[in-house]
Amino acid sequence: MQKNNSLFSDEYFMQLALYQAEIAMEKGEIPVGAVVVCQNTIIAKAHNQTELLQDVTAHAEMLALTAAANTLGAKYLRDCTLYVTLEPCIMCGGALYWSQIGKIVIGAMDDKRGCSKVSPKIYHPKTQIITGVLQEVCEAMLKSFFKKLR
Amino acid sequence: MQKNNSLFSDEYFMQLALYQAEIAMEKGEIPVGAVVVCQNTIIAKAHNQTELLQDVTAHAEMLALTAAANTLGAKYLRDCTLYVTLEPCIMCGGALYWSQIGKIVIGAMDDKRGCSKVSPKIYHPKTQIITGVLQEVCEAMLKSFFKKLR
Repeated sequence: MQKNNSLFSDEYFMQLALYQAEIAMEKGEIPVGAVVVCQNTIIAKAHNQTELLQDVTAHAEMLALTAAANTLGAKYLRDCTLYVTLEPCIMCGGALYWSQIGKIVIGAMDDKRGCSKVSPKIYHPKTQIITGVLQEVCEAMLKSFFKKLR
Repeated sequence: MQKNNSLFSDEYFMQLALYQAEIAMEKGEIPVGAVVVCQNTIIAKAHNQTELLQDVTAHAEMLALTAAANTLGAKYLRDCTLYVTLEPCIMCGGALYWSQIGKIVIGAMDDKRGCSKVSPKIYHPKTQIITGVLQEVCEAMLKSFFKKLR
């Protein structure tokens, strides 16, 4: 497999999503981070805030989608890419469908609540899905968080 | 079938959700309304605001869930009921799963994007689902909206 050595690689942006996950971890939130990128520019970044906001809908992806739409002043994100450290759940997968986002890049997979476990058809048919980017680092961060909880 | 004649029937609260849908319709939004009820008290009401907010996540159910959690100061809504004029989509069904809401009462079904079309297991296993409450009125409002669009 050829490595993408350009500065603006999927690994580069996933690293920025990981930084968002780190912020969540420091606040005692399940460490999931997301960024939305349009033409190599970050237009939204977010981390999971379900505990702080006491709101089950405050997943990193949901907050990032809303922020990206605010930045663009448009609700469809066809020319954007979402980088997220953990596979989206059904709620987030459904939101990503409605956004018609161009591409989704995923770090760790979620064997319990990932939306691919329910149906491969949750995402919009025109959305490109890429998995396994910095997967081990993303997994390690989640494992470390849940290990501390026990 | 015995009719529930108590003031606080499912029909009563669905009527209030329909009023929210009417507000959406007047604003040119797809007319979907929702209320969240806890111990016969409305703790949240919302209508679809995807156009106003230019945000695909701003469905009536999502806004109502967030508002209900804010009112209660708690993210789980186990003792609450959501009344919604249209069957929740996958995003909203996924959010309702996370909320562990006690009961969902649905007006019109959504044959295209309703979450029951993807899987019967989107909702939380402990959530009670009731369909068909004021179904014809809920359907008529949606039909009237889309007829005007054409």
